[in-house]
Amino acid sequence: MIKNIYKNPARADWQQLQQRPGKDNALVQQTAASILAAVKKDGDTALQYYAKKFDNNPSANFLVPAPEIEAAADQLSTSLKKAIGIAKENITKFHLSQLKDEPIVETMPGIRCWRKSKAIQKVGLYIPGGTAPLFSTVLMLAIPAQLAGCNEIILCTPPSALESEESPERAIHPAILYTASLCGITKIYKLGGAAAIAAMAYGTTTVPAVYKIFGPGNAYVTAAKQLVQMDGIAIDMPAGPSEVCILADASAIPDFVAADILSQAEHGNDSQVMLVTLPGFEVEKLQEALTIQTQALPRQTIATNALENSKIICFEQLSEALDFINTYAPEHLILSCGDAISLSEFIENAGSVFIGNYSPESVGDYASGTNHTLPTNGFAKQYSGVSMDSFVKKITFQQLTKEGLKNIADTVITMAEEEQLLGHANAIKIRQNEF
Amino acid sequence: MIKNIYKNPARADWQQLQQRPGKDNALVQQTAASILAAVKKDGDTALQYYAKKFDNNPSANFLVPAPEIEAAADQLSTSLKKAIGIAKENITKFHLSQLKDEPIVETMPGIRCWRKSKAIQKVGLYIPGGTAPLFSTVLMLAIPAQLAGCNEIILCTPPSALESEESPERAIHPAILYTASLCGITKIYKLGGAAAIAAMAYGTTTVPAVYKIFGPGNAYVTAAKQLVQMDGIAIDMPAGPSEVCILADASAIPDFVAADILSQAEHGNDSQVMLVTLPGFEVEKLQEALTIQTQALPRQTIATNALENSKIICFEQLSEALDFINTYAPEHLILSCGDAISLSEFIENAGSVFIGNYSPESVGDYASGTNHTLPTNGFAKQYSGVSMDSFVKKITFQQLTKEGLKNIADTVITMAEEEQLLGHANAIKIRQNEF
Repeated sequence: MIKNIYKNPARADWQQLQQRPGKDNALVQQTAASILAAVKKDGDTALQYYAKKFDNNPSANFLVPAPEIEAAADQLSTSLKKAIGIAKENITKFHLSQLKDEPIVETMPGIRCWRKSKAIQKVGLYIPGGTAPLFSTVLMLAIPAQLAGCNEIILCTPPSALESEESPERAIHPAILYTASLCGITKIYKLGGAAAIAAMAYGTTTVPAVYKIFGPGNAYVTAAKQLVQMDGIAIDMPAGPSEVCILADASAIPDFVAADILSQAEHGNDSQVMLVTLPGFEVEKLQEALTIQTQALPRQTIATNALENSKIICFEQLSEALDFINTYAPEHLILSCGDAISLSEFIENAGSVFIGNYSPESVGDYASGTNHTLPTNGFAKQYSGVSMDSFVKKITFQQLTKEGLKNIADTVITMAEEEQLLGHANAIKIRQNEF
Repeated sequence: MIKNIYKNPARADWQQLQQRPGKDNALVQQTAASILAAVKKDGDTALQYYAKKFDNNPSANFLVPAPEIEAAADQLSTSLKKAIGIAKENITKFHLSQLKDEPIVETMPGIRCWRKSKAIQKVGLYIPGGTAPLFSTVLMLAIPAQLAGCNEIILCTPPSALESEESPERAIHPAILYTASLCGITKIYKLGGAAAIAAMAYGTTTVPAVYKIFGPGNAYVTAAKQLVQMDGIAIDMPAGPSEVCILADASAIPDFVAADILSQAEHGNDSQVMLVTLPGFEVEKLQEALTIQTQALPRQTIATNALENSKIICFEQLSEALDFINTYAPEHLILSCGDAISLSEFIENAGSVFIGNYSPESVGDYASGTNHTLPTNGFAKQYSGVSMDSFVKKITFQQLTKEGLKNIADTVITMAEEEQLLGHANAIKIRQNEF
């Protein structure tokens, strides 16, 4: 059950209630910075050191051999491969819809301006290790990278513990290898943590440097990603622990809400759940459902810990509830409300919104088509989730005819002279001689 | 003239040739970090200290009073106001064309997914000080911010020296005040440098905190912008000294090319010009034109210094020249070539491309409609220039019917179970009870 319940909290208290489970980042940053510096300086030697230290991986062969990738398919069930295939299709369909030709705009007669999306040529994808083999994240990053046309897509992920008994070298979960291969990725490196980020940012003999780095990770990975931005390497977004906010009114079904809460809570001890209720929602029934459903979960302890940090906020007024949600800016927002689709119009800050009783977060996490790499920690106020936009940059083009230049000449000269940039004015004047 | 001339350089030497005028950033970063920390801790008191120290501004009133903003219009010529108006119209037209409704995609029967752009609610614009009053940059940042619908748009710029004799308090150039006001900005702060970035990132009693910070600046401003990213504040892009690359073939007109080179060179001593030539371009005539035109410039010394760092790279082969340009990834690229429009198809990495003899960079700097806030320093490989995209985040939405959930249920359950996230699977299963 969720013990922290607040009724109609005053606005002055919202900030406190919406606080994310924070840590002092200074030490994490310092550690990440020292790992970055070591890899920048010593390349593969440093990678080897950290692989042994953090991933218990004594091997110096980071690149997964092609036969190992090819063999992965045989280790997976047909039903899993089918599921991955369906998810891939949906994710492809939705992401493809984001690609558009942009119009050529004639801003004045003879002045044509346009934009064109061009793939970022080299990108690096990071897939965290840990207990769960996050092959779904491979789909979420590799599909748009491939659709965008990125020439070089590399993937780093630490070897999991799962296969260690079978082989002397620790292996990557076959579902990750299979999914990556299905998405056309052949360069997969057994590397984890801040060292993997460093390798992709600066390059080593084994690992090529990339221009942009994607993917979730622990606090060290996030700090490393933020730090490499100082050197101009782009990242998808800063990431934090996963979180969900649910808005539940009288029409919400407590059993469903409980299941959605637990699907978030099982992620980790620091996962956040914020349940915002409106009059008529049966909090008592929810608590009962939580108790029953928690007991059935293998990750019961994690879920119970996460519920300790979770909160129920009860509002009388819908407008207050919506303001509260927009101020919180959740990564995931589930609208378990009668008129959810209308309410969704009022959402200003969120990563991804799930509308109505039959749209649980799980479907977006895996297979509906939307991307699950989303801004956490309130960053939905300024960051978007990963999309096709994340894998391209947009170049502007312009072409003026003589006529076009004539039309804009005085304007440019006047402005340039006021800014005291006479060279700028002169670039127009010298062409005017031809008019 | 440009003394550094290289003929058909080997690919192995490209990196060296394309090196940007680098500095050791460690000291700059350290200074910026200490300014950030001071403002974060002491707020307005720290701002006052730095305003006095760096901007020679002893006043503690950072917010420009409304009457001062209103009075700015009277201090400008009619022709300048007309020019600003025309530029505003073109920039508005081009940026509006970037706004699009996105389709609702039915990825499977009963599963509807879509995205919606929502304005970033609070944004901060930085306009550098120095000798040139960069009101054009106000247009480039304020117009898309306003079109996107950002609720709170604030602007920081250091007071210029120009008005100091007239009034005891140092003032902001009226063209900046006028342009900001024309774009609907009323909160203008007399603040410059890393301290201004800190104020917008963390907020003080006087200056509200924002979610994203835009605008160019010197090395300290750039370092400060990069550093606040560690705290989750978004920025438009890391910026460096301005640069242009020109591709000139036999059809290019040396006088025009010289003027374009100088319009870049006059920006600052560290401005970069890279002229890439193809057979038939008359380098000698260009050098003559440079000599003549430089003498006519008031910013002659700056331009001459910048030419010292500039290079002419002569290629025999077009394909080599294009590869060289794409590896360089220039902020501005002028294609002074016979078939410029076809060549533009081969550009993979650039901020903004100017096509043909009548499309000098100046027009895009001021008034054609494209944005002049562009990635420098090779960052065009992974960053786009400022556009409408920069002022919004895109939220994904999804709505499933019972039918839709039925269609995707097995897929999600299979994937969730493989990732050992049974709570995720359960969120589907519990709904299946209703089917």
